[in-house]
Amino acid sequence: MTNKTTWFEEIWSPEGSSFSLEVSELLHTEQSDYQKIDIYKTTHWGNLMVLDGCYMVTDRDNFLYHEMMTHPVLFTHPDPKKVLVIGGGDCGALKEVLKHPTVKEAWQVEIDERVTRVSEEYFPDLCDSNNDTRANFYFGDGIAWLKERPANSLDVIIIDSTDPVGPAAGLFNREFLGECLRALNTNGVLVQQSESPLFHSNTLIKDLHTELKAAGFTSLKTLPFPQPIYPSGWWSCTMASKDLDVTQFRASDAENKVFDTQYYNYGIHLGALCTPEFMKKALD
Amino acid sequence: MTNKTTWFEEIWSPEGSSFSLEVSELLHTEQSDYQKIDIYKTTHWGNLMVLDGCYMVTDRDNFLYHEMMTHPVLFTHPDPKKVLVIGGGDCGALKEVLKHPTVKEAWQVEIDERVTRVSEEYFPDLCDSNNDTRANFYFGDGIAWLKERPANSLDVIIIDSTDPVGPAAGLFNREFLGECLRALNTNGVLVQQSESPLFHSNTLIKDLHTELKAAGFTSLKTLPFPQPIYPSGWWSCTMASKDLDVTQFRASDAENKVFDTQYYNYGIHLGALCTPEFMKKALD
Repeated sequence: MTNKTTWFEEIWSPEGSSFSLEVSELLHTEQSDYQKIDIYKTTHWGNLMVLDGCYMVTDRDNFLYHEMMTHPVLFTHPDPKKVLVIGGGDCGALKEVLKHPTVKEAWQVEIDERVTRVSEEYFPDLCDSNNDTRANFYFGDGIAWLKERPANSLDVIIIDSTDPVGPAAGLFNREFLGECLRALNTNGVLVQQSESPLFHSNTLIKDLHTELKAAGFTSLKTLPFPQPIYPSGWWSCTMASKDLDVTQFRASDAENKVFDTQYYNYGIHLGALCTPEFMKKALD
Repeated sequence: MTNKTTWFEEIWSPEGSSFSLEVSELLHTEQSDYQKIDIYKTTHWGNLMVLDGCYMVTDRDNFLYHEMMTHPVLFTHPDPKKVLVIGGGDCGALKEVLKHPTVKEAWQVEIDERVTRVSEEYFPDLCDSNNDTRANFYFGDGIAWLKERPANSLDVIIIDSTDPVGPAAGLFNREFLGECLRALNTNGVLVQQSESPLFHSNTLIKDLHTELKAAGFTSLKTLPFPQPIYPSGWWSCTMASKDLDVTQFRASDAENKVFDTQYYNYGIHLGALCTPEFMKKALD
């Protein structure tokens, strides 16, 4: 690549669409034990991380995903003290989790240590809470880690995974989700990234609801949010609990949150709980 | 173009991003008096209309834009009887307007008759209310049409325009918006498409708020919504009124709406009224 700009394109073949960003430099490339990791400098979106050819994060728009993967679930639990992030190697979810003063211990369990090491270098902003004394890191298989975890020992589980192929394939089935439920304490809440409302309401999102119910979760809600770099520019996460109604949350705490966000606030949480008509039809 | 598939790409140069759809056939192309009109058959999004190289509508995702440009403003007005759509040549907004039983007369004032004629052929679904006896069509300059309109004679004005360059450049300034206010009756409400929350909160959206206030509107609200084919995949409309608080609406009527939608419902309306943190900072 010369210093002339070029474009990085991710084609989403199953839906005949693609999204491209103009890039000025390939800052880093490596084949880790798990995937190809590329970091580009873009012209307008800051740095960009690509895993196996798929967009992961940019400096410019990651706040949407990271805030929606964390603050709704943390304001749904009445008093989240112990929080697990499975995946999330860029550390952006962990950073948002640690903004909550109730949190006493947070684990990030990421299979690919190289994602975190590369993020520390190219996404320092996402990693600036990594030295928080409440933060714990384990690099290895999240499914195995969870099986070793005592029952009733976590308040919130955040599954911040890549698409359900490759390393993340095992994170969307009832066996794994059942392990999550076992590890969650009373009032425990789980959230899982759940792809595009437009593309996946009748497939992955519906299937995830089925698997969550089969695993024993009784209250489910899929929250849509914008995410320009992901296929369709529209993404979602799905919250689930056995004990709590996940459509209710600590509204007053959210309204008076003691930390800054760029997207999330009380109203955004309320709005994300409202389901578009076509999704209601797909999921009811 | 052969029967092998290829891609239509719109590059959004100011932000270094682009979005592409896989297309199998160029169904129609012409240079009208105002713009180049291309219709493609896509592999996964139905038909696609492109004006001067910019995405306008696809069969698959236009419901998001058309529903959000119409139902929030129509459920904000207490009793919308007379509705004007400026632009909107594809007839999709008009179709949604006519779903409201309160509406007695609707005008579509589009500068380029060819857009409507081509839509009748390639987007018959969007045009299937064109024979409604309440529907009136005028092909010509919306600004001139509005100046001839008596004062206090419209309940709702929907400005369903292209980007604020070319034919639509005059639709975003205080002079035109003042003409809208003059034509609106007591409790009149206007809505204007207002580009991308991510790209334009500090520029076009902020400027539009300034122009609306300068024109005499006192209550303003920008409502974000997903729109995959538009730049960033995230779009917005801005509602404004002199007499009404546009953050309030006929909630019960919206909850019990007597027509089908794919995206809009009471909760979606409520959620769209909630402003992301970064937009609050840009617009306050």
